[in-house]
Amino acid sequence: MQSQHIIRNIIVETPSKPGNFAKVATAIGMAEGDIGDITTLKSGALTTIRDITITCKSKTQLDQVISNIESIDNGVKIHAVTDDVLKAHEGGKIAMKSRLDVRSLRDLQRIYTPGVASVCMEILHNPEKANYFTSIGSSVAIVTDGTAILGLGNIGPVAGMPVMEGKAVLLDQFVGLSGIPILLNTSDPDEIVETVKHIHKGFGAILLEDIGSPHCFEIEERLKAELSIPVMHDDQHGTAVVALAAILSACKATNVDIKHAKIGQIGLGAAGLAICRMLMAYGVEEVYGLDRQEAAQERLTNYGGKTSESLEAIMEKCDIIVATTGVSGLIKAEIVREGQIILALSNPNPEILPSDAIAAGAAFAADGRSVNNVIGFPGIFKGALDAGAKEITYPMLIAASLAIVKHTKPGELIPNPLDPTLHHLVARAVEEAANKEMTK
Amino acid sequence: MQSQHIIRNIIVETPSKPGNFAKVATAIGMAEGDIGDITTLKSGALTTIRDITITCKSKTQLDQVISNIESIDNGVKIHAVTDDVLKAHEGGKIAMKSRLDVRSLRDLQRIYTPGVASVCMEILHNPEKANYFTSIGSSVAIVTDGTAILGLGNIGPVAGMPVMEGKAVLLDQFVGLSGIPILLNTSDPDEIVETVKHIHKGFGAILLEDIGSPHCFEIEERLKAELSIPVMHDDQHGTAVVALAAILSACKATNVDIKHAKIGQIGLGAAGLAICRMLMAYGVEEVYGLDRQEAAQERLTNYGGKTSESLEAIMEKCDIIVATTGVSGLIKAEIVREGQIILALSNPNPEILPSDAIAAGAAFAADGRSVNNVIGFPGIFKGALDAGAKEITYPMLIAASLAIVKHTKPGELIPNPLDPTLHHLVARAVEEAANKEMTK
Repeated sequence: MQSQHIIRNIIVETPSKPGNFAKVATAIGMAEGDIGDITTLKSGALTTIRDITITCKSKTQLDQVISNIESIDNGVKIHAVTDDVLKAHEGGKIAMKSRLDVRSLRDLQRIYTPGVASVCMEILHNPEKANYFTSIGSSVAIVTDGTAILGLGNIGPVAGMPVMEGKAVLLDQFVGLSGIPILLNTSDPDEIVETVKHIHKGFGAILLEDIGSPHCFEIEERLKAELSIPVMHDDQHGTAVVALAAILSACKATNVDIKHAKIGQIGLGAAGLAICRMLMAYGVEEVYGLDRQEAAQERLTNYGGKTSESLEAIMEKCDIIVATTGVSGLIKAEIVREGQIILALSNPNPEILPSDAIAAGAAFAADGRSVNNVIGFPGIFKGALDAGAKEITYPMLIAASLAIVKHTKPGELIPNPLDPTLHHLVARAVEEAANKEMTK
Repeated sequence: MQSQHIIRNIIVETPSKPGNFAKVATAIGMAEGDIGDITTLKSGALTTIRDITITCKSKTQLDQVISNIESIDNGVKIHAVTDDVLKAHEGGKIAMKSRLDVRSLRDLQRIYTPGVASVCMEILHNPEKANYFTSIGSSVAIVTDGTAILGLGNIGPVAGMPVMEGKAVLLDQFVGLSGIPILLNTSDPDEIVETVKHIHKGFGAILLEDIGSPHCFEIEERLKAELSIPVMHDDQHGTAVVALAAILSACKATNVDIKHAKIGQIGLGAAGLAICRMLMAYGVEEVYGLDRQEAAQERLTNYGGKTSESLEAIMEKCDIIVATTGVSGLIKAEIVREGQIILALSNPNPEILPSDAIAAGAAFAADGRSVNNVIGFPGIFKGALDAGAKEITYPMLIAASLAIVKHTKPGELIPNPLDPTLHHLVARAVEEAANKEMTK
């Protein structure tokens, strides 16, 4: 269960004299509040008003931050504490918009009756033209049953809608695709597969999102087999693409040859299993997986992966460790091996703090804060749709990882997700890989 | 089967001397081409270039128009004949857009992880807040199985997509709702009902569109019974709302008291049956229906309507005739009664031309060109959603009709669909009717 971040904006007025803002920052720091963006709302001769974004781990901590600021006195005043996250969600984050204005009768006749009939007939006689004359080819259904929303668990599809809308926002903003949330009120694999099959004609691709393990595996495999449009469970393969990119960047930084390294994956849920499969597809010869559930280990074995008998054994054997268990502090410093690469990806609290891992002898260590699948799925879907691909294959996913690595600055693990060229490079790489496969 | 209109734009250059454009207009008229909007692209000293929208009934007629213009000679030149309808559909007419810009890491954290988790938890603990913090409350699923697309028949949902996108355009442009096309690859009522039930949580309302008769009746009734959000089959009730408004305006113009008039409905398909039910709900005491299919007449009887034995009998008996048969020229002048009101609504060719009906003694006659359900559904859905209504009831539909009548200029049958205040008046009337019902 992910502990809940509380993000608030505090509007603070301070006297316009040097040192006053420092007092506010100190007051926040004393309560261990995390300071984010600061915007100056008014910069007057006498006083300055700032909008300070802070992140707290609990309501108690937030109250402490506020009372610390209030007790500075000396002209420092809090004007408001606002919840800008909630405000940003008012009315929802997405809307289906017309790409054309309807201002005249002529417009109406063109986009609706009677003009539209000629477009329908054009598609009836040349079905492939649906991709040119409708939005189908640029639409991605974002399908969830709400059983594994972020780290929050099975909170249902409606409570999960803000996440689906978030994905739609990113598809629009990063690659110009239409993301359409589809909330399923069933988590039965048969019913999910049937439902998606019945509605898939309206979409160019299917993004499965936050569907719990293990039913996510069956659902994805059946849909991939039965539909001739790209289907991808982002929590598996989107995450694996970004993880492979991060591992490759870590190997580059430490001069490790990934293909001949022993890699240990701790935690074989949706992400962990997919990371193992991705590494094997990339050509890593020795991939070991560990999970406390026997069934999860069996799934890995079925895909040709090896398993390990214990945490100690896998830590002892492997050169590279990736952990996606959700268990904070699982990896103790004592079992870290000299020179190991450790990616402890559970959010918000990793299996081992990077600083602790380095202190224990690791050559490279990172946590999951920067390994966000935001950098993967938009370009992957854009590339697959641009290529007219019927499925998303490992060569396409690997091409995405390599494009991400290529765009990562030396010394960094992952590129800036807000860089628009990143998503277009990923899309082009995926499109090229798809074209190569289709002309094989 | 609706005959297909061909709409083209002809770019014509003429010498800038009086009388030259008249020659072009005459040439088009000689081939019976219908002239629409004309835009002057260049108004030079020597020549003028115009973009002329013309509508033809066939390719042959279009060719005749072009050759007529070309044979004017005398400096008249056609530069291009373009299909602006098709051009307007390139890439599709709708797109899911973000309502917020994602420009900074702070934006990303607000609309996606980690900020979004707090919004999910807010909805989990207060489910009714999904209407405030997601787009669900302003989204309408536009559901079709493609079995009755316009007058084109069963051309399938993908070929019907341009119509669904057209509806989404109108929902966005007229009332700011998100219309989400859902294309079903099944026309089995059980499967359609199951599928819509499984995905309905993501939408505030369901618009059933271009689903054929008779399975449309069962599907709508079952969904209305099983879902607690508004469900409406537009081809039935949206059309009936507009038809009732037109009948009321016709009665006003001829001083007829609708409630005590005998009304005959010829054709009991989706629209015809719904018009009968609407008239009865409005309080018309004598509604007679006629259809060549026994099952269609039985459906009307089940709803408490009366049937008629023949076309001649219903024409003889009724003061007001509404025809929705799709059969051009069905009503001969000989059977028109003195003083009758006749709405022959089949598009594009009515059961009797208004001029013929008037010549035969009708007091009022109109065809279906202006009776477009564009003026109904946007306001109906907006009003129902704004009220938080769980269903769309007859009092709400009647309120929509009355709002339309109120907004109709004297002497006209139906208001201008492009008037934005019209849709807001319809929405407010529907919302008020819904509120009145819910507080009963």
